[in-house]
Amino acid sequence: MTAQPLPSCLGVVAAAGSIPIAVCEAARKQGIDVFVVALKGQAAPSIERFPHRWVRLGQVGGLLGALRGAKCDDVVIVGALRRPDLWRIGVDFGFIRHLPTILSLARGGDDAILRRVVRFFEGQGFTVRGAHEIAPSLLAPAGPFGAQMPNEEHHADIARGVALLDALGPFDVGQSVVVARGHVLAIEAAEGTDKMLRRCKTLHQSGRQRRVGVLIKAPKRGQELRVDMPVIGPRTVEMAAVAGLAGIAVMSGEVMIADQAETVRLADRNRLFILGIDRTV
Amino acid sequence: MTAQPLPSCLGVVAAAGSIPIAVCEAARKQGIDVFVVALKGQAAPSIERFPHRWVRLGQVGGLLGALRGAKCDDVVIVGALRRPDLWRIGVDFGFIRHLPTILSLARGGDDAILRRVVRFFEGQGFTVRGAHEIAPSLLAPAGPFGAQMPNEEHHADIARGVALLDALGPFDVGQSVVVARGHVLAIEAAEGTDKMLRRCKTLHQSGRQRRVGVLIKAPKRGQELRVDMPVIGPRTVEMAAVAGLAGIAVMSGEVMIADQAETVRLADRNRLFILGIDRTV
Repeated sequence: MTAQPLPSCLGVVAAAGSIPIAVCEAARKQGIDVFVVALKGQAAPSIERFPHRWVRLGQVGGLLGALRGAKCDDVVIVGALRRPDLWRIGVDFGFIRHLPTILSLARGGDDAILRRVVRFFEGQGFTVRGAHEIAPSLLAPAGPFGAQMPNEEHHADIARGVALLDALGPFDVGQSVVVARGHVLAIEAAEGTDKMLRRCKTLHQSGRQRRVGVLIKAPKRGQELRVDMPVIGPRTVEMAAVAGLAGIAVMSGEVMIADQAETVRLADRNRLFILGIDRTV
Repeated sequence: MTAQPLPSCLGVVAAAGSIPIAVCEAARKQGIDVFVVALKGQAAPSIERFPHRWVRLGQVGGLLGALRGAKCDDVVIVGALRRPDLWRIGVDFGFIRHLPTILSLARGGDDAILRRVVRFFEGQGFTVRGAHEIAPSLLAPAGPFGAQMPNEEHHADIARGVALLDALGPFDVGQSVVVARGHVLAIEAAEGTDKMLRRCKTLHQSGRQRRVGVLIKAPKRGQELRVDMPVIGPRTVEMAAVAGLAGIAVMSGEVMIADQAETVRLADRNRLFILGIDRTV
């Protein structure tokens, strides 16, 4: 997190989910003007209540032009990016012009790609801000939130999961793992947290009655948090519940919670704990 | 691998796949009498051409009795174990008697479980031999086999995969990973290699025409190879081909190849390489 003063105007490049909207609302509350560049096929339609322009992912020229037209030097790039259909991204001249950079983005892990996205925007004269700089209330706090508390077994699973994520960091992979009673059930690589959780249901020993195991989610050390902060939300809780897990542990201050009230409500209803942990666990 | 002399009689506890049969055949060729304890719902019916007795997984007493009746001091426990339906394992008195041991097996990672299985049989007076001690030709040799050769990009992916598997070893997880152009696509935990390969197809960047990426498979350091040697076979090659991978790298001498001729034939037909690598890659 930086100590930079807040800008007077903020460009929000918005992909999917509720977090772009939460960022716009938080900005407005602080007296910051927002201009949204909404990505077609990605951003939620309700983003339209803010001044905006829709662009396709391939309209790199259009995107940069929209941000410049709004005279925003500071940009936030935020929201979940669904895998685009390469034939429908609507390439424009700016895309062609920046093609070498864009092609180079396709190589390497997520982190390498996102660092280059930041560098690209910075190269175009923008200051890239993290969503959490504008909306710090999105960050997971430390300690339990919701009604359930982890027990000793869960704490041991969490410690093992954190150590495992640490071991994976050098390989630019692994934002989350599932550990159940010391046994590593699943490790997330390129498939994403949702798909990883989906397969956990069948990996539990059959006949189990009570909830067992923890989803542990944390950014890699040195991950580019300005554009790639891990997120959990209502869907994560629902999928963890279906997977039979006992709870979710996230790195406090380094993971965002989408729809916090709904997330906690669902966790309570499914008797799952959610715990904000420290790096020093 | 031990330098123990070959036994005159061998008990083969047979689970699924062709490898139990290959072990029986290799034993016979060396003049070793075999007696098969075939696990119901697991072993291939063609195992019946050897002297055998079928037992359910829960018939621990029956299993031990069959081995003792055949007067085999040496046993091989071999084949893929499909997840049993706990209500249909046909518990006998021996199961009840050994219940505390069996229950303790259910905790921990695969490696921990299989070590305890070995210890259980040893505690019952048996010598547990590795399938590869009886049938060393099942082991993957060093170097390429089949017609395709890995290129420099593939070698880099293999080195990254081996390093990643090494990093996972302390967590008793990860027999295989998929790395494509430096990017870790998938890490195997409790789901097994087949399921991991299944999700790789959609993880490739869309629009890719040529084969990219390598499945790297190796035992964990210190893995109990007598009862848990990693295996690839025709199905692995087919799934790797569907996933769009360029090849498969296995730790030579520490991974078994089922149906070697068919495996190589399928690899050649799909233009996949198979490479036996050294720990020192």
